[in-house]
Amino acid sequence: MAGITVVGIGPGSLLDMTPRARAAIEHAEVVAGYTTYIRLIEPLLADKEVIGTGMMHEIDRCRMAVEAAASGKETVVVSSGDAGVYGMAGLVLELVLQREVAERPHFGGVIAGVSAVNAAASILGAPLMHDFAVISLSDLLTPWETICKRAEMAAAGDFVIALYNPKSKKRVQHIEEIRRIALKYRDPETPVGIVTAASRAEQAKTISTLADFTKETINMFSLVIIGNSQTYVKEGWMLTPRGYGKKESGL
Amino acid sequence: MAGITVVGIGPGSLLDMTPRARAAIEHAEVVAGYTTYIRLIEPLLADKEVIGTGMMHEIDRCRMAVEAAASGKETVVVSSGDAGVYGMAGLVLELVLQREVAERPHFGGVIAGVSAVNAAASILGAPLMHDFAVISLSDLLTPWETICKRAEMAAAGDFVIALYNPKSKKRVQHIEEIRRIALKYRDPETPVGIVTAASRAEQAKTISTLADFTKETINMFSLVIIGNSQTYVKEGWMLTPRGYGKKESGL
Repeated sequence: MAGITVVGIGPGSLLDMTPRARAAIEHAEVVAGYTTYIRLIEPLLADKEVIGTGMMHEIDRCRMAVEAAASGKETVVVSSGDAGVYGMAGLVLELVLQREVAERPHFGGVIAGVSAVNAAASILGAPLMHDFAVISLSDLLTPWETICKRAEMAAAGDFVIALYNPKSKKRVQHIEEIRRIALKYRDPETPVGIVTAASRAEQAKTISTLADFTKETINMFSLVIIGNSQTYVKEGWMLTPRGYGKKESGL
Repeated sequence: MAGITVVGIGPGSLLDMTPRARAAIEHAEVVAGYTTYIRLIEPLLADKEVIGTGMMHEIDRCRMAVEAAASGKETVVVSSGDAGVYGMAGLVLELVLQREVAERPHFGGVIAGVSAVNAAASILGAPLMHDFAVISLSDLLTPWETICKRAEMAAAGDFVIALYNPKSKKRVQHIEEIRRIALKYRDPETPVGIVTAASRAEQAKTISTLADFTKETINMFSLVIIGNSQTYVKEGWMLTPRGYGKKESGL
């Protein structure tokens, strides 16, 4: 029976996509995904039916994909990074489970990918070596007060903080408010790393400080990592030691 | 010049290792890593020098690897999952930077892998679709009070909470204390997923509740994911909707 599988394609380059993900895409007759991500896997798409529309229609795109699978076509829905982190895994699974059992395509599961936060961290050095919190600043589906409360808790708990969707054309002040919240708990000199378009041709990285990082270029393809109280920068690398009580891990 | 690269091999199966990671291992003359992980990549190690010792000697193992690279042998240090999350990335980078510039091997960077938390989530369904916090319960290098404070902040902030190193033979009560902390903020019926040995032959998954999950089998190869206030279970899948105000993402 035809099925639908959700695939994390990794941050960008095909070199960062797992063989399991690649095989699922190669095996599929229909591939659905946000157009930007479809372009990243163009070499794998010859002779396939592609459902690629803009960001605003993701529910419709996933519905079409579930429909394609139900009609007998082996289908994958792709997300950049890991499909389970702000990706399409949940939406597709919900859409499949909503259908009457007799009308459901087989759910082929979720294939994990290298998440954007891990890709960004690897480019900065080793900023996530200790406990971390991942927060999206998009308030399309989450109240802004909830997001601020989370940033406050993460800052108070001395988590390394990774911010997804830090800024868009319409949303430029949110990152400033998060900065103010973090400054209540952390030194202005706390290192902050910014990676834009990790693992793609236009990849860029910047290391700044909590005091100044919002002056840097940040856009919707950026991931921002705010260090914890132990994070330091050495020769252009951002490092969080594994433990406490020493800036370098027991060396 | 020979260099040293830190490689995340993914959660277990070679199908979940990126081509970039695989190429780095294949290209290396020396491969260092915890013996359990070395076994996972055995098929790639023919004719290579292997530095594999027990968990307790990881600093020595990394020192030997840096030494091997400095002596002119192309070297990789492998970590399971992503090398930047409780892995070897930070330690190796610190050891390289500690050396006099003239005596340093080239640092080839960190190659990101599929992190254990993403692998576990993909097996459970889609529990991480919203903001999440990652906490290790190992108190070898971090004071237990700090870990509890973090769990408290993560629970108060309604983060999905992923627990690494939830339990070992010597450390069996920590998970109970985290459960008590979470219960101060969350419903006893909150779904909790447990995945052990993700992506390996002995992979196992269980979905339980915050009230009862510590009665399940949990060991040092388990990853525990505690849902947020919106997380639900449907037909054996654990799902966190992307937003608030509706249990199913705007469908």
